[in-house]
Amino acid sequence: MSPPADGTAAFAATSRSRVRRRPQRASYDEAAVYEVLDAGIMAHVGYVIDGQPFVTPTAYWREGRKLYWHGAAASRMLATVAEGAPVCVTVSFLDGFVVGRSGIMHSLNYRSVMAFGRARLIDGLGEKREAMASFIDRLYAGRPLKLRPTTDNELRQIALVEMEIEEASAKARNTGVGDLPADEGWPAWCGVFPVETRIGAALPQPGMGTGGPPTPDLAPYAEGARLDETLSVAAKAYGLPVST
Amino acid sequence: MSPPADGTAAFAATSRSRVRRRPQRASYDEAAVYEVLDAGIMAHVGYVIDGQPFVTPTAYWREGRKLYWHGAAASRMLATVAEGAPVCVTVSFLDGFVVGRSGIMHSLNYRSVMAFGRARLIDGLGEKREAMASFIDRLYAGRPLKLRPTTDNELRQIALVEMEIEEASAKARNTGVGDLPADEGWPAWCGVFPVETRIGAALPQPGMGTGGPPTPDLAPYAEGARLDETLSVAAKAYGLPVST
Repeated sequence: MSPPADGTAAFAATSRSRVRRRPQRASYDEAAVYEVLDAGIMAHVGYVIDGQPFVTPTAYWREGRKLYWHGAAASRMLATVAEGAPVCVTVSFLDGFVVGRSGIMHSLNYRSVMAFGRARLIDGLGEKREAMASFIDRLYAGRPLKLRPTTDNELRQIALVEMEIEEASAKARNTGVGDLPADEGWPAWCGVFPVETRIGAALPQPGMGTGGPPTPDLAPYAEGARLDETLSVAAKAYGLPVST
Repeated sequence: MSPPADGTAAFAATSRSRVRRRPQRASYDEAAVYEVLDAGIMAHVGYVIDGQPFVTPTAYWREGRKLYWHGAAASRMLATVAEGAPVCVTVSFLDGFVVGRSGIMHSLNYRSVMAFGRARLIDGLGEKREAMASFIDRLYAGRPLKLRPTTDNELRQIALVEMEIEEASAKARNTGVGDLPADEGWPAWCGVFPVETRIGAALPQPGMGTGGPPTPDLAPYAEGARLDETLSVAAKAYGLPVST
């Protein structure tokens, strides 16, 4: 039986998911894994066709221990993962350039999660409609009620999959330049250039929609807001039991 | 024979690399592929171990038709790809949230490249030293000459691989909300929230290095600069024949 998906449990560190390099940067706690997953919108989905790996960037969302993503009904990626093939879903953020006084002390600051599992197709129109509304709701709380209702035909044009996370690990680096005795006194500039991803100024679509400023469901997408915070706030507004 | 790697040729669109969904968003031109690759620093490397896909985020750089990445000598990812196993290297940028008046007209703006090939280990200390200096140089032009020289022992601690890109495709969406007749007159806000990744204020490492403002090799990493532009500018300063 799985432990409760309330952010207090941990994923098992198996031969597949255990972080080998710099294990001190790794965590298997649900809380750490969910914090990264709930701050992102684009995942890189890895799958195998005839021994060849493919990595497809795609939008995703999380509910409990499950990840969801979707695409065109004819997508090769979705057809492959929907068969229950093993999948690796990776989410990562670049947080900074670490500039040292020697080559080896250059690095990057980052946060990442690798999640492993097998996906299943959500095929029933009712279940699909509900899940797709959840995706909009998770990004823009309350918005599904404001939208022109999705038709059955539109639902048939998309394929939607759900993957229970079997194992996952989070990994992060968020420090300055390491202090190496051999670098002491070397006269090169050293430090960190942070990298920040933020929401820009909203661009209302000319001649379409209500115009004017974005409605309250879109409030987290305010100009200058950090993208990871925007998405975490949106996830909380939706009611995800996040730990951040 | 491969065509010249000067940005004027194109990669072959094979059953592996051909974009099936929304082919109008795809390109196989070297120029389009390099433009995305040279604007990024983090790739997602896909590889297979015993039928299980793994997707590892890692720093990379490009020279001509070759991609390079590195890590700890004991890295499982590097050990796997160094054996010549098939690899998929994906680079992507999230450029915006597209908010429509119906569920199906919600989308994301993005740029991405999928590159396929097989990697080889660069093992000779001389070749490795040169390649690692190229990586620093490509990010921070002229910087290798300012650094404490890398020791042989440090070079032995890292594994470095080179992958000739056999096939690659670029894909992008960079438009507003699609105009669907069924959505006409629906009173929901619609438009785009751009997403921008920028360099933050430099954080000199206290008590280490020269302090003060960053040196000229670090000029592209100015506060407020767009990350993709920073990396493209750095690539040009290094002398990459980029097309942007």
